[in-house]
This record gives sequence, structure tokens and C-alpha cells, in this order.
Amino acid sequence: MYISESAVDKLLKDAGAARVSKEAKQELRKYLEKMSFDIAQKAVKLAQHAKRKTIDASDIKLAIP
Amino acid sequence: MYISESAVDKLLKDAGAARVSKEAKQELRKYLEKMSFDIAQKAVKLAQHAKRKTIDASDIKLAIP
Repeated sequence: MYISESAVDKLLKDAGAARVSKEAKQELRKYLEKMSFDIAQKAVKLAQHAKRKTIDASDIKLAIP
Repeated sequence: MYISESAVDKLLKDAGAARVSKEAKQELRKYLEKMSFDIAQKAVKLAQHAKRKTIDASDIKLAIP
């Protein structure tokens, strides 16, 4: 896991939430983890496509939906 | 910041990256932070709309693009 439950809690509180259910935290965390990993995998493929071993910012920019 | 640079590095390595530039990490982190906060703010608005003070999983599900 790349994003902690406490980070998700803080994020929602900073966005104005008074209280956050455990299920809401889990749901948001699950989505963020999946979406982040999808972008990362796409960036890896884009670097391979450009015959590079180093992921650079251009790969990330192209990988973002 | 809700997602650390080392978490973003690990994410990209787990997705298959051999090496990752500092700019790539910054770019991905910046995007994830912005996108996460946008979803969180939308979830807060949805809970307010439903006259609740507690964010629940249904708010997150509706807030996800």
C-alpha cells in the first residue's frame, strides 16, 4: 500500500470533512491505489516504448488520463 | 502532502520501472495530490448535499470520476 489510511483521513479532513467513516477511507484508498498503479504501469510502458530504462516526467505526463 | 516521494518511487518500481528521474516522481506526486484532493472535496460536497456530517462510502463512490 502506497497511501496510508491516516493520509486518506487527513486528506478528507483538509478538504472539509467533519467526520469520515471507515468504509469511506477504505473506498478512497482502494481507488487511489488502483488509479496510481495504473498510471505507473502506463508510464513504464511509455518509457519502454521510447527505449529508455529511466522513467522521466514526459512518461508521467503522457500516462495521466 | 499526503503521498511521500518515497511512496511514489516504490509505486513506479513495483510497476516495473528500473530507474525513475526526480522530475518523474515530482510530476506523478503533484498529479496524485491534486486529483486526490479534488475527489475529497467533491465527497465533502456530496455529504453536505445529503445533509450529513460524516463522509461515507457512497460519497466517495459518487465523487470518483
